[in-house]
Amino acid sequence: MIVRPGRPQAASGADVIRASHAELRVTDLDVAQAFYVDLLGMVLSERTADALYLRGLEERDHHSLVLRRAASGGVGHLGYRVREDADLERLDAYLRAEGCPTRWVPAGEEPGHGRALRANDPFGLPVEFVHEVDRVERMLQRFDLYRGAHIMRFDHFNCQVPDVGAAYAWYAEALGFGASEYTASADGNSIWAIWTQRKGNVHDLALMTGIGPRLHHVGYWVAEPSSVLRACDVLAASGMTHCIERGPGRHGISNAFFLYLRDPDGNRIELYANDYQVTDPDWEPVRWELNDPRRQTFWGHAAPASWFDEAMLVEDVHSGEFVATCEPILEGKPLHVT
Amino acid sequence: MIVRPGRPQAASGADVIRASHAELRVTDLDVAQAFYVDLLGMVLSERTADALYLRGLEERDHHSLVLRRAASGGVGHLGYRVREDADLERLDAYLRAEGCPTRWVPAGEEPGHGRALRANDPFGLPVEFVHEVDRVERMLQRFDLYRGAHIMRFDHFNCQVPDVGAAYAWYAEALGFGASEYTASADGNSIWAIWTQRKGNVHDLALMTGIGPRLHHVGYWVAEPSSVLRACDVLAASGMTHCIERGPGRHGISNAFFLYLRDPDGNRIELYANDYQVTDPDWEPVRWELNDPRRQTFWGHAAPASWFDEAMLVEDVHSGEFVATCEPILEGKPLHVT
Amino acid sequence: MIVRPGRPQAASGADVIRASHAELRVTDLDVAQAFYVDLLGMVLSERTADALYLRGLEERDHHSLVLRRAASGGVGHLGYRVREDADLERLDAYLRAEGCPTRWVPAGEEPGHGRALRANDPFGLPVEFVHEVDRVERMLQRFDLYRGAHIMRFDHFNCQVPDVGAAYAWYAEALGFGASEYTASADGNSIWAIWTQRKGNVHDLALMTGIGPRLHHVGYWVAEPSSVLRACDVLAASGMTHCIERGPGRHGISNAFFLYLRDPDGNRIELYANDYQVTDPDWEPVRWELNDPRRQTFWGHAAPASWFDEAMLVEDVHSGEFVATCEPILEGKPLHVT
Amino acid sequence: MIVRPGRPQAASGADVIRASHAELRVTDLDVAQAFYVDLLGMVLSERTADALYLRGLEERDHHSLVLRRAASGGVGHLGYRVREDADLERLDAYLRAEGCPTRWVPAGEEPGHGRALRANDPFGLPVEFVHEVDRVERMLQRFDLYRGAHIMRFDHFNCQVPDVGAAYAWYAEALGFGASEYTASADGNSIWAIWTQRKGNVHDLALMTGIGPRLHHVGYWVAEPSSVLRACDVLAASGMTHCIERGPGRHGISNAFFLYLRDPDGNRIELYANDYQVTDPDWEPVRWELNDPRRQTFWGHAAPASWFDEAMLVEDVHSGEFVATCEPILEGKPLHVT
Repeated sequence: MIVRPGRPQAASGADVIRASHAELRVTDLDVAQAFYVDLLGMVLSERTADALYLRGLEERDHHSLVLRRAASGGVGHLGYRVREDADLERLDAYLRAEGCPTRWVPAGEEPGHGRALRANDPFGLPVEFVHEVDRVERMLQRFDLYRGAHIMRFDHFNCQVPDVGAAYAWYAEALGFGASEYTASADGNSIWAIWTQRKGNVHDLALMTGIGPRLHHVGYWVAEPSSVLRACDVLAASGMTHCIERGPGRHGISNAFFLYLRDPDGNRIELYANDYQVTDPDWEPVRWELNDPRRQTFWGHAAPASWFDEAMLVEDVHSGEFVATCEPILEGKPLHVT
Repeated sequence: MIVRPGRPQAASGADVIRASHAELRVTDLDVAQAFYVDLLGMVLSERTADALYLRGLEERDHHSLVLRRAASGGVGHLGYRVREDADLERLDAYLRAEGCPTRWVPAGEEPGHGRALRANDPFGLPVEFVHEVDRVERMLQRFDLYRGAHIMRFDHFNCQVPDVGAAYAWYAEALGFGASEYTASADGNSIWAIWTQRKGNVHDLALMTGIGPRLHHVGYWVAEPSSVLRACDVLAASGMTHCIERGPGRHGISNAFFLYLRDPDGNRIELYANDYQVTDPDWEPVRWELNDPRRQTFWGHAAPASWFDEAMLVEDVHSGEFVATCEPILEGKPLHVT
Repeated sequence: MIVRPGRPQAASGADVIRASHAELRVTDLDVAQAFYVDLLGMVLSERTADALYLRGLEERDHHSLVLRRAASGGVGHLGYRVREDADLERLDAYLRAEGCPTRWVPAGEEPGHGRALRANDPFGLPVEFVHEVDRVERMLQRFDLYRGAHIMRFDHFNCQVPDVGAAYAWYAEALGFGASEYTASADGNSIWAIWTQRKGNVHDLALMTGIGPRLHHVGYWVAEPSSVLRACDVLAASGMTHCIERGPGRHGISNAFFLYLRDPDGNRIELYANDYQVTDPDWEPVRWELNDPRRQTFWGHAAPASWFDEAMLVEDVHSGEFVATCEPILEGKPLHVT
Repeated sequence: MIVRPGRPQAASGADVIRASHAELRVTDLDVAQAFYVDLLGMVLSERTADALYLRGLEERDHHSLVLRRAASGGVGHLGYRVREDADLERLDAYLRAEGCPTRWVPAGEEPGHGRALRANDPFGLPVEFVHEVDRVERMLQRFDLYRGAHIMRFDHFNCQVPDVGAAYAWYAEALGFGASEYTASADGNSIWAIWTQRKGNVHDLALMTGIGPRLHHVGYWVAEPSSVLRACDVLAASGMTHCIERGPGRHGISNAFFLYLRDPDGNRIELYANDYQVTDPDWEPVRWELNDPRRQTFWGHAAPASWFDEAMLVEDVHSGEFVATCEPILEGKPLHVT
């Protein structure tokens, strides 16, 4: 098991600033808008015939969430912003050399974005890189418009992959992702899960052992635990109790005060507060043991089995078909599951 | 100075359950609705040609606030609910014997209310007593409708009168109001202000030395300090910063986490959290010294002069004209004023 | 099924002000003090060779919790304060006439208390009535001493009894307890559980269908949900995660934001915030259906089976032996249990 | 007026990661410890005969605050951490070339630190750069030890200088500080104040027009507004109300929910919550007008004059004497001051 301290140099030569947006699939735009905008309080930047473009209250970018109409839930792509347009060329060359065919998306195909580069990474996850992004009004001080969960900003992706060690090694090597925390496998010799980052807090991308490639959840940041509690109350008052899958609670790992929701198409999002800063490039990762009862749930509650078993299938960026999944090479669950 | 421990027997024979509602005067119903409903988040029960009827999220009564159209701000009446209709007869006899002419208000004249009795108390404050009140939907668990300050319920009146000792003696004797806390005058020999109650928390009616009879503020209860902070943020984001007169802060007296607002007609309302229970009828009142710096503002901030100097004129319940005011018999302000 | 609106007259002639204190049994005073004082932050009023006497931050009475050394967890008595000493005589006569032998406890036998009257009620619950209580310093504004859960005050008892309808009828008739909310049985014809009160909020005594007589929990009030979250964090950080049995969550019934803890001897206490006022003596009780999924847990989480199955045995006030229990006459659990 | 978008390249070639620690002067270590540790809840890492070394709950570094015994309050140095030890050599060369004599501090002279470089910047502010820092236990999840204000981590310096435009130009050019927000002067042609950063949130170093060089305050970050309110309550309960200089309130600029405290030696610290992320190196700075009433205090409260007039003198890193100050070249205060 190799977990590197610090945020390493990126072999691709590209500077990935942060995980920036997700494209999820939904079956009904009206239903999705009711959930994400009316109940959770996200800001609607744009609605087209085929998709909704949403952002959090703190965000100045055109969107951090695309909800695209499709036949089922699932994932279109995981978006990252890079420092400059030339980084896209560097990534194009690097990915092709790694055996990952790329696809250029022309400016404006995704509203609010300049040209972008898409590929499935070596583990099948559909990624998009973009530099040019339209600026829109930041709602941070429009407190009169705050609703629902008071979602501030996109934070991270959490993905299930069969071989976390290999996926982490690639993201560290190719893109310079640094580890903030990780979970050792039951025998202590492998990485069972790892939290990696570029933007200076706990994570942009978490990798967790499981059937994959799948997206386990998209994480949105809220300013304090009361936002999470309000989300529960608003959903329950609106007859959407069934959307609350797990929490509220606290993770030992990352210190997150969390809530996991399933949207009307079964896509999973996390609302969380109480992470911390990881500003230093030489950060020493925090190690957790897989079966430490406080790791997953600091307060000791068992997670529901669905939280471990279910996750979102991801699209092939070329065919639009779902990528086939594989079983994990390590045991898939810790002990503390219902 | 006589401050009785406990909640005494009422000489009137009537059982006043609680302070229940206020009628304030406003010059423009649309402007008032925008302030109280759209920004502060009160629930609109009914709007007539002449008035708005509002309630808090926890309340089941038709209204706890009437905003009646008039030529200026000010006060129509201070409402109390009694245990049974017969209490109204007892109060009618008692008030007339005390030299306070009464007026019967027929059922429905104030929407949602049965017949009511009005009079100006011996100190000129316009009071109304009512028993029959229409029940409406309680919004306590309609978290999806919570807005602004999340106002839960009406709590109390705070009145300025020239002779607090006399007014307290009457409310204790006639109506059985018990003291929870009080402030001794600078020389320690008189009551400068007193907090009195019937419903089992800190106050239904506070009496404060000042030019009077005037209503200093109507107090609404919110569940926690964050509601008070949200009110500030929402008002500021809506360009209504000038409505924030004092706070947020904490009173030493009553432990209230407070915010004082002036509505668009200058009427003053308090939002507050963090009071306590006074369930026991033999409660020993808490004494404060007038110039204890933690009494008015526990954190030491001076109150603005307007907070002491300005208050709402009150109507004569017979003529509808404002009642003339007198200067206080004690010094009108503590030291800790800007 | 008869549920009376309002707070009826008490046939005993006594005026029970409120549920005021509990005596629980613990096996080790040091261990109990570490849990209740060091972790939860209750205030220690007195420690004797055999017992701890504790109070909340808002309380002026000598204690609201006695932790008496005994061979196992369990319940000594459920304490109520009455308006005047003469109420004790009235209750003595009434209880004996009801076939409940009484026992007078001399002043000072329970430190801080005047003479008290004990009996097992007709359903076997050990009750104590007391009027004279020593006043101690209120810590409400000693914010520098706030620790752990910031427990403010004792609130209520929740008891399991085989026949809730009969027990409610007696408490309403004999002692004038009014119902605030209740749960109808699955067939809609009986009372499955009921929340009753004297002090003007949701409850002093809740009665729930189950094996009984047993005390399900003692409820302590905290000022806001953040106190409940802090309790979880502090317990977890102290290696006491196993003490967290259920929650945090929200009950539909009572609107409580709750947390259920098991002390080191298995005694169950609830920390809760967000109840509401029930000041009016003619309050119309709120009805819930047993299998409404939002009744027990507004957010939809199933309660653990232990929460329904386990409760505290209660002592016979004469023999000190545990009172034998009976099976309930109605179905013992709602559907929404793990 | 030149305000550059984004975080520019540093001409010094050094990579300053973040503002990391402050050295303040105090006259009595016991008094200082009582204030910072016992009341505010900072963690004591080490106490020597001459100084206290403190950190926040989230911090892994040995200290972020040094309180050194001296004849009066004031500032020893403003500390920054650099990416690698070689950055110190680059800064040494650059500063000397800029006419700023440097001083090397041997490893361990400041406990917990490797060798460091000190100088007074071209405006007289005493800065220290360091790379090697000892790691200590992070208390983030030791919730049982949280006290007082729950201070999480050091955040920023706010300095008064006579010519903000010149100082900003130097920090941007020499060290690559990017602007997040700024205030234009009354005529709109100059920079009156500017918030600059390296670590990816609103600021590491704010520069404000005023008599200088002086340190206006050291900013510590807390997780939510309730921490700020608790600080007020704890200080007031401990008889330290006079330490509360301004707030709690919200700044329009930076969105900070703030509280300004004066320690027993008059040193000013800010506790604040609710800033936001500035991860993108091409961030477009937010512009505010000097006399926008919502800039300084979003809720409209005037700041006390002391907040503008008083600040901490700073030492010459060679002589240890205070650096002489100059009057500002722009008008020193906005309109909204008491």
